[in-house]
Amino acid sequence: MLRQDGRTHSQLRPVKITRNYIKHAEGSVLIEVGDTKVICTASVEERTPPFKKDSGEGWITAEYSMLPRATGVRNQRDISKLKLNGRAQEIQRLIGRSLRTIVDLKLLGERTITIDCDVIQADGGTRTASITGGYVALVDACRKLRDNGLIAKMPVTGFVAATSVGVAAGQELLDLCYTEDSSAEVDMNVVMSDKAEFIEIQATGEKSSFGKSQLDLLLILAQKGIEQLIQIQKKALE
Amino acid sequence: MLRQDGRTHSQLRPVKITRNYIKHAEGSVLIEVGDTKVICTASVEERTPPFKKDSGEGWITAEYSMLPRATGVRNQRDISKLKLNGRAQEIQRLIGRSLRTIVDLKLLGERTITIDCDVIQADGGTRTASITGGYVALVDACRKLRDNGLIAKMPVTGFVAATSVGVAAGQELLDLCYTEDSSAEVDMNVVMSDKAEFIEIQATGEKSSFGKSQLDLLLILAQKGIEQLIQIQKKALE
Amino acid sequence: MLRQDGRTHSQLRPVKITRNYIKHAEGSVLIEVGDTKVICTASVEERTPPFKKDSGEGWITAEYSMLPRATGVRNQRDISKLKLNGRAQEIQRLIGRSLRTIVDLKLLGERTITIDCDVIQADGGTRTASITGGYVALVDACRKLRDNGLIAKMPVTGFVAATSVGVAAGQELLDLCYTEDSSAEVDMNVVMSDKAEFIEIQATGEKSSFGKSQLDLLLILAQKGIEQLIQIQKKALE
Amino acid sequence: MLRQDGRTHSQLRPVKITRNYIKHAEGSVLIEVGDTKVICTASVEERTPPFKKDSGEGWITAEYSMLPRATGVRNQRDISKLKLNGRAQEIQRLIGRSLRTIVDLKLLGERTITIDCDVIQADGGTRTASITGGYVALVDACRKLRDNGLIAKMPVTGFVAATSVGVAAGQELLDLCYTEDSSAEVDMNVVMSDKAEFIEIQATGEKSSFGKSQLDLLLILAQKGIEQLIQIQKKALE
Amino acid sequence: MLRQDGRTHSQLRPVKITRNYIKHAEGSVLIEVGDTKVICTASVEERTPPFKKDSGEGWITAEYSMLPRATGVRNQRDISKLKLNGRAQEIQRLIGRSLRTIVDLKLLGERTITIDCDVIQADGGTRTASITGGYVALVDACRKLRDNGLIAKMPVTGFVAATSVGVAAGQELLDLCYTEDSSAEVDMNVVMSDKAEFIEIQATGEKSSFGKSQLDLLLILAQKGIEQLIQIQKKALE
Amino acid sequence: MLRQDGRTHSQLRPVKITRNYIKHAEGSVLIEVGDTKVICTASVEERTPPFKKDSGEGWITAEYSMLPRATGVRNQRDISKLKLNGRAQEIQRLIGRSLRTIVDLKLLGERTITIDCDVIQADGGTRTASITGGYVALVDACRKLRDNGLIAKMPVTGFVAATSVGVAAGQELLDLCYTEDSSAEVDMNVVMSDKAEFIEIQATGEKSSFGKSQLDLLLILAQKGIEQLIQIQKKALE
Repeated sequence: MLRQDGRTHSQLRPVKITRNYIKHAEGSVLIEVGDTKVICTASVEERTPPFKKDSGEGWITAEYSMLPRATGVRNQRDISKLKLNGRAQEIQRLIGRSLRTIVDLKLLGERTITIDCDVIQADGGTRTASITGGYVALVDACRKLRDNGLIAKMPVTGFVAATSVGVAAGQELLDLCYTEDSSAEVDMNVVMSDKAEFIEIQATGEKSSFGKSQLDLLLILAQKGIEQLIQIQKKALE
Repeated sequence: MLRQDGRTHSQLRPVKITRNYIKHAEGSVLIEVGDTKVICTASVEERTPPFKKDSGEGWITAEYSMLPRATGVRNQRDISKLKLNGRAQEIQRLIGRSLRTIVDLKLLGERTITIDCDVIQADGGTRTASITGGYVALVDACRKLRDNGLIAKMPVTGFVAATSVGVAAGQELLDLCYTEDSSAEVDMNVVMSDKAEFIEIQATGEKSSFGKSQLDLLLILAQKGIEQLIQIQKKALE
Repeated sequence: MLRQDGRTHSQLRPVKITRNYIKHAEGSVLIEVGDTKVICTASVEERTPPFKKDSGEGWITAEYSMLPRATGVRNQRDISKLKLNGRAQEIQRLIGRSLRTIVDLKLLGERTITIDCDVIQADGGTRTASITGGYVALVDACRKLRDNGLIAKMPVTGFVAATSVGVAAGQELLDLCYTEDSSAEVDMNVVMSDKAEFIEIQATGEKSSFGKSQLDLLLILAQKGIEQLIQIQKKALE
Repeated sequence: MLRQDGRTHSQLRPVKITRNYIKHAEGSVLIEVGDTKVICTASVEERTPPFKKDSGEGWITAEYSMLPRATGVRNQRDISKLKLNGRAQEIQRLIGRSLRTIVDLKLLGERTITIDCDVIQADGGTRTASITGGYVALVDACRKLRDNGLIAKMPVTGFVAATSVGVAAGQELLDLCYTEDSSAEVDMNVVMSDKAEFIEIQATGEKSSFGKSQLDLLLILAQKGIEQLIQIQKKALE
Repeated sequence: MLRQDGRTHSQLRPVKITRNYIKHAEGSVLIEVGDTKVICTASVEERTPPFKKDSGEGWITAEYSMLPRATGVRNQRDISKLKLNGRAQEIQRLIGRSLRTIVDLKLLGERTITIDCDVIQADGGTRTASITGGYVALVDACRKLRDNGLIAKMPVTGFVAATSVGVAAGQELLDLCYTEDSSAEVDMNVVMSDKAEFIEIQATGEKSSFGKSQLDLLLILAQKGIEQLIQIQKKALE
Repeated sequence: MLRQDGRTHSQLRPVKITRNYIKHAEGSVLIEVGDTKVICTASVEERTPPFKKDSGEGWITAEYSMLPRATGVRNQRDISKLKLNGRAQEIQRLIGRSLRTIVDLKLLGERTITIDCDVIQADGGTRTASITGGYVALVDACRKLRDNGLIAKMPVTGFVAATSVGVAAGQELLDLCYTEDSSAEVDMNVVMSDKAEFIEIQATGEKSSFGKSQLDLLLILAQKGIEQLIQIQKKALE
């Protein structure tokens, strides 16, 4: 049975990665996953957060936000409410953790790379698109550091990409769009490396709990999708 | 003498207006003025601010923001500082005032249209690009209201567009890019209607005061540019 | 090989649940998991959040905080920084989601139960202790509603408890204390129901990625621990 | 005529001070005064506030807060409102001032001791319990500094304790519980030293003004109560 | 021995009350006590705070602030720090409580009078000057309500005024100016009614504790000063 | 046709500048323009903002605020809303820019002068009165610096004053009071130097756009008014 947009259950949406999207940033990408569009920029700053002071190491951090009308209904800006919304905080912590796993902070040296992920149009999977696209922006920023002689060796040690999987109407699905996601019984975001290992799994069964065999099926779907995403990253970075 | 990008003193940068840029919004535009790129969305909400309660009239308001890396150096997000920066407030008040001059709020009825102007890449003239692009998004949102039978008649009563002019190295220039703007002795933002009348003039001589004859020259340049911008709006809206 | 506190790799710390700990709250519990101590109160309010207005359904929400000196080093209060810290937001969203899975919101009726989880002493596993203890406080609050004739039937449809598992020094461990947690290569929080199904899995490999077989081992450990925790909840609620 | 809990007008509620209540803090106490329960921790930090920079002196400061459900009705957390409530600010300033009177800041050296008073259950007299209990936590923290050789001599120069007195139903009462306090015509918090001298008097007659003779009677009651509280502190500190 | 400004120990500074100082306010006063100058306005609003909803009663509240340069050193505005400073909160709560004691809230009806006390020049005793001056503004606002037929009868039931007393260089002093106040061993603010009864006493001995006989002496001084202040209020209100 | 207060269309309201109004400030002025009254203080601080660090130059900045009851209806304080209102931000940026044009920041040296403009009574033209009055306070502060030997030479290089002009009921008017301003079709604030040159023009046609000839008429009116204001400044500074 095909999905609303004609995909099979194990098919990713079309993915497009446009590099050098914002001229000012050291790395910048527009990633499109179906109708989800995220601008990911990587900004290098020659300073570290206080907890890395004099450690000889750098830091990777991320910020995530949506334009007010990235969604069907307009959202108030955080600054209007004077509160960073909880969902955004959760997501930016996830992006930062995921990208740090494939960076050698010693090789990066005492500098910070901030990955800003700004969703300009949302249709499900914005956090996983942010990781997949943010990775490419990060690599570009590191290449620029290396080409400018600021670092001797690329600090990026591997690939990392992410996708969502879930169970909707009783069926396991790869890469949920917004309507699938909002009706899903089980929803799961998976971050993996190019060594086919897990970096982060966030599985939630708000509408129904799930058993081990269902988890296993979902992880297989996720792995299949992430392998394809890493191929797309590799091609984009050529 | 030509300018750094090869323009004459009275020449606009290339302007491109892409309509329907964000699928969720009632009106949405990507406006590009040289390297300045702003996403303008118009969102309709069926409620009015308290001061328009039971007035039979609607309201037009605007919000303006920049992505952190829209500029050469990364800016902290407002929410990180818990303060909406003063420049942004000033600009969004200007955008709202300018667009309200060409809307019949009675015809709009008791609803609010919010124009969100999010700068994704900045190279001077972001506030004037926001007005010029925001106008087109506003018209599209009103057309949708009319086509859906929510309003009987278009509430938009005319055209409005804006540009900057200034004096740099002693020469009057139209449509300053960032490097021209940051070295300008006099800097001026002009908003005009299609009746060749002024809606707003903001002229600042922080580095040097300016005389009446210089003001007159600048206003002529501005008028010339705005006439062209309104032609571009008209073509985009066909 | 025994752990620093003499436990085997698959052994929970001693767990103690003291009911009716705060006299004002409809439900209240002090849960102690080793040296981790959390006060969980369940407060009933006869109103719902706006998004549940006139739905005939109630809502369960949670807030999580630590006393400034619950940890080895004093933390500034959120209000001093005017920011709810990201970790706390993430955790309180998890607690809320987990507890909602076992509540029939229709049976609860149009009222809100807020589960406040305040950590008075932290030694690892504060979020999972909050879920396990918060569940008991929630049941007590529902019983009070039922005993007072405000609801006809208990809206709690099952049990939910949570624990952490992780890999430290290459070994899979159940219920990590703080020193184990801070050196863990893989860290995982698991929430399960009494039907031996998963409600939430949050697995993070910041220091090293992890394979499927390791994931399977950790989930078995977690399930074993949670079965015991549910027994402890049952005994406490007798 | 006996009071609602069987006490005479000049009788304190049962007071219990449990030392070393939180394992991480340099000093920590659970003080129970009737049903009022406050966790007081004393945290030592090796830095001073800016206004004590290079003064050779240290500083004592206090923070006061209530758990949301310490009271009959749940209170929103300060961080939800982005405002530290006025009552809490007033109280923490009082606690800080009171405890500073019995500390030789020169002997303390350039370090700060923060007394965190977190009310876990409130039944009247939370501010005075915080002072009485905070004192004991402070002494414990100073002893630890001395025992670790960080200071040569105890900087604590005397005892300080506090209680409330008031007039309810025309009668002068010592140590008001919540129901007495909320109906009191005159309400007074008194802080005294072991030299039988006043450190702070805060007397309020919101419902009715009061004369000098009534003030005198209340001060005698307060002094009697504080003498007993200092005995309890002495016993606890043995 | 005379004081630095030539006063005896029991002498008030010159007090001047100028009514109708701000044309927009229902009541407004400039009160000058020596070099301390406070603008007090009383604003009537036809609504009550939520906790007085449908009570048939009104409310009196106060706000207190200082201009940034009211003091020797410029203070940052609260809004720059996003925090209402603790001292101001404490003071405005005191002003509100004090003025409520002499208002019959039933007679006031369901409306709020806000007393804004803005210190334009500070030289000690700003909080007590705010009470003394705020009282006059409050009376004027109530008279306007009565003269406009909005209330049948004056809701003000008596007089209230305030002054400071303290011990400096071992001597009891009435009405401390800033230099006296900042070196005082004991500092006390006293609010009294025209029935020679106390409404509020706030006595603080941060630098040294104080005995009962000293307290008695200070209260006599305060009473003498307040009697004079009430005479000045009476004359101003003629 | 005379205006409501008997003025001709080209007549300023009575202007009064009282120097040394606040004893603590290095410069301070009460400026009265009709019923508009603003306290302007100039505070010198021996530090610069970060962006002027080690530049050898100083900085001039301004803050603008209104007392809550400076207007017909009481306004909530910014701190109650935790937001600096947009209008105030816009105005204080304008004041700062305007005053910086006539200060040689090199001669000022590495110090900051903050001009605080606090409106105690508003009747139109508060921003322009703040510039005109703030200028005098600034000169006084610079004179004090010079007289104390802290700077060798006056850094103030000229005069600056400001007024409003506008079109109401079809007539061009100088120096609008509040009722004129609120019904004006075109509203314009003009800042000029004593060289009869423009420093800032802010012209707004929210109710109706305006042509070039109307602009010219308004600028002539403004120039006439500003010439008089500069005479008043000169006289005040003698």
